[in-house]
Amino acid sequence: MLRSHGGRARAVRCGDLHIDVAFIAASIADEYGNCNGMLGKSAFGAMGFAYADAFHADNVIVITDNLQPYPVTPISIPQIYVDYVVQVDAIGDPAGIQTGTMQITRSPTRLNIAKNVVKFLAKAGIIKNGFSFQAGAGGTSLAVTKFLHEYMKKNGIVGDFVMGGITGYVVDMLHDGTIRKILDGQSFDLKAVESIANDEGHVEVSHIMFGDPHTCGCVVNRQHACFLGATEVDLNFNVNVNTHSDGLLLHGIGGHQDAAAGSDVTIITIPLLRGRVPVIRKEVTTVSTPGDTVDVIVTDRGIAVNPEREDLIEAVKGKMEIVDIEELYKKAISLVGEPKEPKFDDEIVAIIEYRDGTLLDVVRKVKE
Amino acid sequence: MLRSHGGRARAVRCGDLHIDVAFIAASIADEYGNCNGMLGKSAFGAMGFAYADAFHADNVIVITDNLQPYPVTPISIPQIYVDYVVQVDAIGDPAGIQTGTMQITRSPTRLNIAKNVVKFLAKAGIIKNGFSFQAGAGGTSLAVTKFLHEYMKKNGIVGDFVMGGITGYVVDMLHDGTIRKILDGQSFDLKAVESIANDEGHVEVSHIMFGDPHTCGCVVNRQHACFLGATEVDLNFNVNVNTHSDGLLLHGIGGHQDAAAGSDVTIITIPLLRGRVPVIRKEVTTVSTPGDTVDVIVTDRGIAVNPEREDLIEAVKGKMEIVDIEELYKKAISLVGEPKEPKFDDEIVAIIEYRDGTLLDVVRKVKE
Repeated sequence: MLRSHGGRARAVRCGDLHIDVAFIAASIADEYGNCNGMLGKSAFGAMGFAYADAFHADNVIVITDNLQPYPVTPISIPQIYVDYVVQVDAIGDPAGIQTGTMQITRSPTRLNIAKNVVKFLAKAGIIKNGFSFQAGAGGTSLAVTKFLHEYMKKNGIVGDFVMGGITGYVVDMLHDGTIRKILDGQSFDLKAVESIANDEGHVEVSHIMFGDPHTCGCVVNRQHACFLGATEVDLNFNVNVNTHSDGLLLHGIGGHQDAAAGSDVTIITIPLLRGRVPVIRKEVTTVSTPGDTVDVIVTDRGIAVNPEREDLIEAVKGKMEIVDIEELYKKAISLVGEPKEPKFDDEIVAIIEYRDGTLLDVVRKVKE
Repeated sequence: MLRSHGGRARAVRCGDLHIDVAFIAASIADEYGNCNGMLGKSAFGAMGFAYADAFHADNVIVITDNLQPYPVTPISIPQIYVDYVVQVDAIGDPAGIQTGTMQITRSPTRLNIAKNVVKFLAKAGIIKNGFSFQAGAGGTSLAVTKFLHEYMKKNGIVGDFVMGGITGYVVDMLHDGTIRKILDGQSFDLKAVESIANDEGHVEVSHIMFGDPHTCGCVVNRQHACFLGATEVDLNFNVNVNTHSDGLLLHGIGGHQDAAAGSDVTIITIPLLRGRVPVIRKEVTTVSTPGDTVDVIVTDRGIAVNPEREDLIEAVKGKMEIVDIEELYKKAISLVGEPKEPKFDDEIVAIIEYRDGTLLDVVRKVKE
């Protein structure tokens, strides 16, 4: 069962997903369980994932390598939810949160895609004071963040917040006043960790608050834009992030469904081809995020807008070239030919749940 | 139905007390409902009372006179619980939180009681590094806080935390390093309000965390001492805070039961007589806090220790005079004679619930 960040929080809170024991790593804790991930030698930043678990698990065990006198503050998970506190030598290496994907892409193709995202938003009149967005940590997303930062700074635009997966690129925006607040569910590099511990405007939020659709309102609903990746997109704007075109299950959903559903404008950044594999398909191998929540596809060979978004098409008319998604598909096919479809067994290896709990798709076993 | 702060949080959380609509005043809020009481012209400090209500009411309405752009931080009540936000001209006058009782007593009798509280704790070896206590806002409690501050500072003792009802007297302790942290469920004066907005070590806590006995552990359990008032105390150390000796219902319970149950040493500060009315009785008119949670009675005419606390009696033996509570009772009677008992109708006007939900006592209507 694969769920989005917000969908998992929803499932835990409503009882669909029962947790017997939650093990919560903390870089500082007191013996009653008040803890956070911001302080100490193993500081890793926001613990947005831990909230729903701590609130609802039958047993909550905080594991720390840094036990400090009561009371530890700031309090991310409060003592009232914590059954046990366990002290260990080391909870892990915080450098490990900073993986290879946390670098701005060097690919000219992808840099061009990122530039076109910012150009599209600018031409559509979306980047103005109060502009708020979700930043990711892929190489292209980081490039979008950097180019957005440059654009906003140059034009004196101040945004309300960035939600994320937070990186140093977003912290730079906070520090020079290009955005007022950072809402952080998971810190993606050590600069973000340092910032959440020290910057008043950098605030930890739970994944409940990030994206649980069964609340009185989650943060994604306030995002003007989000920039997301995909392994495939189809002619109905459905997005696959779970399998590759060979049908093999590879990725989780992350916050993809949540960000797409909530944001005013959901932008998918993809190359038209990966090697000799077209990324735009007639139908995606797996539906991870439904097409009616996806608005714009930015590729290296053109930008397509969901025909349902007449407002966006109207907004950029005459200012920027957009193409039909069928055209992008045909261009890909003309370059590499019709893609070979994988063959599947009947056996289901994964269920893709939508964030609200409905069944979205299944992943079947690929025939050897 | 009268409940303690912690008992009310418990009742709301477990469903004993169902809330249809919670109206939550906030001195700053955004249109999604993220709010606090720390910022803005009507800042009133901690909103510890509001948490259980916000988490469990069918409808949550935040009322503010200070609507600010999304997202408002720090977030006391998060948007995920808030159904509506209503803007009004003024939510109230914050000067009103600072009432006449928030002054140190000038009565030599009460100052003497306060001095004896500190003396008792010192002689018993309880005031040492890490010492943590609950401060109240009555004139005598404030004097205890002041004298404790002086004692700790003079002896180079650093406490872990003060929990309260927080006043400027406690803020002074934080500012000069006599305590490391303030845990604040309700701010009692404007100096406390200013501090909670600005001092990193001054942290807002919910009344759930303060005293709900149905959690994995509440703050009162970590208190070495608390200093509480009483309208009456009886020979079994039961305490009345709800009625006076005339039987009339006058007060709520506040955090009395919670602090008494949790703290290592619960100290009741009372004069032996109020006018010609003895404060120590054979039986209290109403049991608000059960005697088995009460340890020391400090009066202007002597100190009595609950005989169950052999450890405390042993600790101060030879260092400080303590008397039997019967002696204090006899002394009071010898001065003013046997007190007149009120006459009651059968009609019950109030039920006193213990913090864990059990029935503790009832208050009957006084016969005219």
